Amino acid sequence: MAYEFLSCPTCGAKLKEYRNPLPTVDIIIEVDEGIVLIERKNSPLGWALPGGFVDYGEPLEKAAIREALEETSLRICNLRLLGCYSDPARDVRHHTISVVYVASGHGIPCAADDAANLQVFPLDSIPAKLCFDHRLILDDYLRRRSEGMLIPINSD
Amino acid sequence: MAYEFLSCPTCGAKLKEYRNPLPTVDIIIEVDEGIVLIERKNSPLGWALPGGFVDYGEPLEKAAIREALEETSLRICNLRLLGCYSDPARDVRHHTISVVYVASGHGIPCAADDAANLQVFPLDSIPAKLCFDHRLILDDYLRRRSEGMLIPINSD
Repeated sequence: MAYEFLSCPTCGAKLKEYRNPLPTVDIIIEVDEGIVLIERKNSPLGWALPGGFVDYGEPLEKAAIREALEETSLRICNLRLLGCYSDPARDVRHHTISVVYVASGHGIPCAADDAANLQVFPLDSIPAKLCFDHRLILDDYLRRRSEGMLIPINSD
Repeated sequence: MAYEFLSCPTCGAKLKEYRNPLPTVDIIIEVDEGIVLIERKNSPLGWALPGGFVDYGEPLEKAAIREALEETSLRICNLRLLGCYSDPARDVRHHTISVVYVASGHGIPCAADDAANLQVFPLDSIPAKLCFDHRLILDDYLRRRSEGMLIPINSD
């Protein structure tokens, strides 16, 4: 069990509390020409899957739909579960656990929120280097897709 | 974004901080005669899958192996991902996100830690009522198992 030590901003007392990994979602959005990647506005800079933190009280699938819309302006449906990624070193800032969905994108893609830019990449032209473990995730996606091993989600 | 208000135990000041869902793991442990369920020592009482909170810095698969050993004394291998369960109402105490694995159990099952008791249930004799959403999870397991839709994990 890991703890975190915070200081009270009023009196400076040290406060000990449990620390939990932070749940996130990432989404592989499929469109006719390939998949959508975003160029991050904040550090670490570079190309990445759209995604972000899951809010307290928010189911995973709703977080995926919200983050996809916020960052790419696309509505997504037909969610399928690719897998979960929880290596403590996957994000140097904190320990995140990402649940990764594959989904179909609808609308006109347009970067917003934490995304400075976006681009649709054909599956044979995905950049070799992506932020976090997103290249590993996409390698898993390409393999699972060919095997038909994506789990349909009953949420939309 | 949801916030949590804590009080400083020294001066009583109100502290506002981000609140995140809590990551957990649950494990469907397969043995020759069926699957292993535990009888919970703490509220909510009843039969449930073995499982618990993921520690900060701990990968999901290691949390599953640790919790299975702590609660059932079984070593597990051949982990496969069943799915993720994140309904905010699945645990009345707090919003948890559970990543559920199916695994093969080895050793002599013996209840310990948070488990008051355990029992191996044949697949056609699983109790109709389980704690949390564990009956729903097991219904998904029985269906996915018959469809061969369990994702192998490269971790052991």
